Amino acid sequence: MPTYAKPTLVLDERRARRNIVRMTEKAARLGLRFRPHFKTHQSRRIGRIFRDLGVGAITVSSVDMAAYFAADGWRDILIAFPVNVLEMADIRRLSARCRLGLLVESPDPLAALANGIAAPVDVWIKVDIGANRTGVDWNDGEAMARIGEETVRRPKLRLRGLLTHNGRTYGARTLPALERSHADSLRKMRRARRRLEAAGFAGLEISVGDTPSCLRLEDFAAVDEIRPGNFVLCDVMQLELGTCREADVAAAVACPVVAVHADRLEVVVYGGAIHLSKEDFVSKRDGRIYGRVCRPRGAGWGPVLPDTAVCALSQEHGVVRTTAAEIGRIRPGDVLFVLPVHSCLTVNLWEKYIGLDGTKIPTIRSGSC
Amino acid sequence: MPTYAKPTLVLDERRARRNIVRMTEKAARLGLRFRPHFKTHQSRRIGRIFRDLGVGAITVSSVDMAAYFAADGWRDILIAFPVNVLEMADIRRLSARCRLGLLVESPDPLAALANGIAAPVDVWIKVDIGANRTGVDWNDGEAMARIGEETVRRPKLRLRGLLTHNGRTYGARTLPALERSHADSLRKMRRARRRLEAAGFAGLEISVGDTPSCLRLEDFAAVDEIRPGNFVLCDVMQLELGTCREADVAAAVACPVVAVHADRLEVVVYGGAIHLSKEDFVSKRDGRIYGRVCRPRGAGWGPVLPDTAVCALSQEHGVVRTTAAEIGRIRPGDVLFVLPVHSCLTVNLWEKYIGLDGTKIPTIRSGSC
Repeated sequence: MPTYAKPTLVLDERRARRNIVRMTEKAARLGLRFRPHFKTHQSRRIGRIFRDLGVGAITVSSVDMAAYFAADGWRDILIAFPVNVLEMADIRRLSARCRLGLLVESPDPLAALANGIAAPVDVWIKVDIGANRTGVDWNDGEAMARIGEETVRRPKLRLRGLLTHNGRTYGARTLPALERSHADSLRKMRRARRRLEAAGFAGLEISVGDTPSCLRLEDFAAVDEIRPGNFVLCDVMQLELGTCREADVAAAVACPVVAVHADRLEVVVYGGAIHLSKEDFVSKRDGRIYGRVCRPRGAGWGPVLPDTAVCALSQEHGVVRTTAAEIGRIRPGDVLFVLPVHSCLTVNLWEKYIGLDGTKIPTIRSGSC
Repeated sequence: MPTYAKPTLVLDERRARRNIVRMTEKAARLGLRFRPHFKTHQSRRIGRIFRDLGVGAITVSSVDMAAYFAADGWRDILIAFPVNVLEMADIRRLSARCRLGLLVESPDPLAALANGIAAPVDVWIKVDIGANRTGVDWNDGEAMARIGEETVRRPKLRLRGLLTHNGRTYGARTLPALERSHADSLRKMRRARRRLEAAGFAGLEISVGDTPSCLRLEDFAAVDEIRPGNFVLCDVMQLELGTCREADVAAAVACPVVAVHADRLEVVVYGGAIHLSKEDFVSKRDGRIYGRVCRPRGAGWGPVLPDTAVCALSQEHGVVRTTAAEIGRIRPGDVLFVLPVHSCLTVNLWEKYIGLDGTKIPTIRSGSC
């Protein structure tokens, strides 16, 4: 096992690979195109696990991330973020290099886009099914048809389909609630497509993406493509939602213990907001938490300690609240593993993962772009 | 003005300099040693503004940050984080290079420390005055005396004094509440020192540090050293606490507008949790917010838009809630400036600032260490 003198992002690559194989097989079994979101792992090496399984299409969350993976040979990339016309120079370069998918939610950027690109791109209409972040209202057939018209009249823009992210599933705390939210989202997407068909747009695809639904549910009728990302590493959010098991969590931050306050059942670790991110989860049992805690086991980490959580974070400090039974076994100089609440935001803070065997696995932050 | 095609951390260096001059003068006027905390700005260039004003002693929050600034010539560095014995090799190297101050809150690490260092270091006893993060309880004279004894019997360890961080002031929403919290902290620190004096430890210093008190208050009786950091850039937290003015906020994130939803008075910017951090502030008026919003003005940004705030963040998206009057003036392709809730955590996400004239100002993340 590597020594963890400082906070370290640790990857259990075997688990990540297993998560990837499982989702790849599920997509194949359900007849869905698998376009995994790479914003979670942000790593070329992890990306290649997908490629070795035959995955050729990916999702990213920024133009920079698209460039990073294009440089590693990816040739079918969807940027799942509304087109930012200020980045046209970069979009142009990417369009020359790979099959590029872009999101629009109004006709506004289409003229600039058609003029700016070097080669045809796919246009996806971002649909808001009620998550209220971005997108055209699923019920606004007129607005969608306007985007459709402004797209198809430009030869360099191909109208590919309708895309949504049902972020509401992160608020579904039970399986029936998850099922209802997902079914509602699919129903709205199908209706939106029918409206566009009625307006004369044929052959449009439907792309959906949230990890909770992709992990847990089987009904993807009428869906063409899924774009989950978080499932590769999982995290406390998925654990608490019941959409993964502990053995699926593939990344943790190793944190040295620097203080033990037995009187108030608190341990202070070197591992704060700059190592974990301040993403929180409000647990019924434990209130607002910033991570779950495990002891080292073998080359990795063991089971989640019961009634134990990171309850406060400052820049470099994490405060772990635990039980009388556990605290007697923790000493300054020990290392604890913290499972992050949201692995995407945690990974984004790091230049590299360390594998269980000590291998360095760079991320996009390492600048190896 | 530089163009901001992507989210960009922008520094108004004139404001930062003015903040630095003001605090340096205040410390001098009050007869306090000024040991600014460099974890906020994390920049050698900003550090040199202090040096040019005659500041020679600094505070950092990690061993790595100490090494970064030691390499730029700083020779009196306090690491305001409990000694992590797993980092002894790095601490040894630093001790050979500069006057190093370290924090302890129990006698446990002292033997390893004395054996590990190359040259004498200053030991500060971290005192908990009720903030309940780290430290010995201010009232536990016996525990402090034990640390004192175990320190002074080792020739390479110099017992320098008592140090606290009164983080409670970040919860003080009025000036009287701030005054009460600060006075309570100083009273406890003086009592703690008297207890150690009674146990035979003479000449101990008192070091305190929170930015709200240092910005707003004048009574630092019996204090030897102040360690504020956040005042250099200020942020929404300080604004909301009333400890700074808008014209003091020296850093903002420029964010391209990618969608305008006039129907729900929301604007989506390219600028999310990975650009701002998920640090929040719960405002009485606006609920949980992640930043305040300004329009560009001149080479920088103008006043905070009324009744406008970042109300939700995902990885790359920020959702700005605003008024009917404002939303009519905002278009996709515009740039808005977001003032962060907590500048320390925002800066930590970036490899560089961009000055108002386009100058690149690297941070510790740039790897120019």
